[in-house]
Amino acid sequence: MKILTLDQIKEIVPSIDLIPAIEAGFTAYSAGEAVVPPVGELLLDRGDVHIKYGYLEGDKYYVIKIASGFYDNPRIGLPSGNGLMLLFSQQTGELLSILLDEGYLTDTRTAVAGAIAAKHLAPRDIERIGIVGTGTQARMQLKHLASVSECRDVLVFGRGDEQLSRYKSEMEEHGFSIEVTRSTTDILQSCNLIVTTTASKEPLLEAIHVREGIHITAVGSDTPQKQELDSVILQKAGLIVADSISQCLERGEIHKAIEAGRISVNEVIELGNIIAGKVGGRTSEEQITVADLTGVAVQDIKIATAVYEALAEQ
Amino acid sequence: MKILTLDQIKEIVPSIDLIPAIEAGFTAYSAGEAVVPPVGELLLDRGDVHIKYGYLEGDKYYVIKIASGFYDNPRIGLPSGNGLMLLFSQQTGELLSILLDEGYLTDTRTAVAGAIAAKHLAPRDIERIGIVGTGTQARMQLKHLASVSECRDVLVFGRGDEQLSRYKSEMEEHGFSIEVTRSTTDILQSCNLIVTTTASKEPLLEAIHVREGIHITAVGSDTPQKQELDSVILQKAGLIVADSISQCLERGEIHKAIEAGRISVNEVIELGNIIAGKVGGRTSEEQITVADLTGVAVQDIKIATAVYEALAEQ
Repeated sequence: MKILTLDQIKEIVPSIDLIPAIEAGFTAYSAGEAVVPPVGELLLDRGDVHIKYGYLEGDKYYVIKIASGFYDNPRIGLPSGNGLMLLFSQQTGELLSILLDEGYLTDTRTAVAGAIAAKHLAPRDIERIGIVGTGTQARMQLKHLASVSECRDVLVFGRGDEQLSRYKSEMEEHGFSIEVTRSTTDILQSCNLIVTTTASKEPLLEAIHVREGIHITAVGSDTPQKQELDSVILQKAGLIVADSISQCLERGEIHKAIEAGRISVNEVIELGNIIAGKVGGRTSEEQITVADLTGVAVQDIKIATAVYEALAEQ
Repeated sequence: MKILTLDQIKEIVPSIDLIPAIEAGFTAYSAGEAVVPPVGELLLDRGDVHIKYGYLEGDKYYVIKIASGFYDNPRIGLPSGNGLMLLFSQQTGELLSILLDEGYLTDTRTAVAGAIAAKHLAPRDIERIGIVGTGTQARMQLKHLASVSECRDVLVFGRGDEQLSRYKSEMEEHGFSIEVTRSTTDILQSCNLIVTTTASKEPLLEAIHVREGIHITAVGSDTPQKQELDSVILQKAGLIVADSISQCLERGEIHKAIEAGRISVNEVIELGNIIAGKVGGRTSEEQITVADLTGVAVQDIKIATAVYEALAEQ
């Protein structure tokens, strides 16, 4: 049994080609080959804990992920998010690996899903990338987009000058050219690949400023309350994609747009079916496309497997 | 974060006074102070996996236990049962300890619950202890009974001569005087504290041979299918005790007896309420008492906590 520390995991992850691994996860999920029971939940006074688990039929492993958010932690110098993944053998039930990733693999698989959405849905010519938010996902999404787009010209929206300037200096070290803005209208007016990464409960992007041909990936909203996009944006979109239709009915942008009567579930396509070529993706350079990613356990299964197998090969 | 191996855990467990710890767990559970969500489950081709988790309100920890049963494992030299427990801080969500107990702590907390049931329900004078079954629980139940009873005179029921003679020689090394039988009638005729530990799906103990004043603890039946006691035994009992009434409605002996129309749920008392003194236990030396233990997550919470704290003190 291998116990992998965060340092070991961070060292190996850049050497793994995660896009095909996680694409295969989405494909299997949409083909009904993933067994993913309802998420286990503990709601405590100071935080909450989620247990996501499942397996792919015919695969070697099953994975159990425990993730927590304790929102007062930063006051005592601890990160609010934490987590680990456990990888077991489907043949014997043996514990093969404990991945003490502290939430890093969840952040990574979320960012990789953003890159996958952009790969399949973004317009051919990306003029400028717009990032809404300045946190961990705002950084990781941009870094992972670099593997599917050559565009390095970025406009980032944030609410605090300090966060914006830190984001700018940090991401410029990674080879991006960063401009900052306090207005999401600027983002909509100059960017045609936009990723929203905030925990906002009020729409940040207004439908009126949405231009033809843009793609928006919304990764921030993962609860029934959170919302980053005006629901009219989804109504205007020619293609609405979900990582999991069943999950997007209960949380995220699609949930909000259906609730507002702007779209119906029949209009929503699952990402795995686009990756598999079962349904078409973007049909023209003018089409507006939206991907709503709420996070599914197959991503955890696939990233835990990829890390375990990469380290086993070393 | 402490990772504890099975060897470390086995070394520390005998030094811990588990009876009060697990009694406190039952008491809290029956007082509604335990948060124990529904068990998570994965049903795989070769085995099944259960995720039990929860916490006591106002406690320091929450615990997640993963237990598996892969029934072909012995063919390749692996145990069928396996498991681990994870202990986290309720204050911060930090992972404090991984207890790689391989199912040993589950076996132990089950045996301790048997001792607790005997402590509160067995007749004053235990003439002879009857053990039904010759497996791991048959051994562990008897060992733990030694802490609540001075009786060392034991009759054990089993179906195979080899298993019986192995049980006899092994348990005699622990200071018990063991006789063996192939008849459960012998057990009912000479023992007044009986523990049933098999995975039988047909009743092994017949009501007709049940004498006044005996106590039976049934620990084998933990699914809706398994049954060790003729339901008429529960009907004859003056006191029927469950570790968890809600769970015993769905699985175990009480479930079977209610299904057969032999008893009603109103007759069932929860063990934690007897321990707390909220309701009386045995009312006379003639009363027949039955305890049905299906296993509850508070036992896991309490034993993981006790082991973690004992090792932290070292």
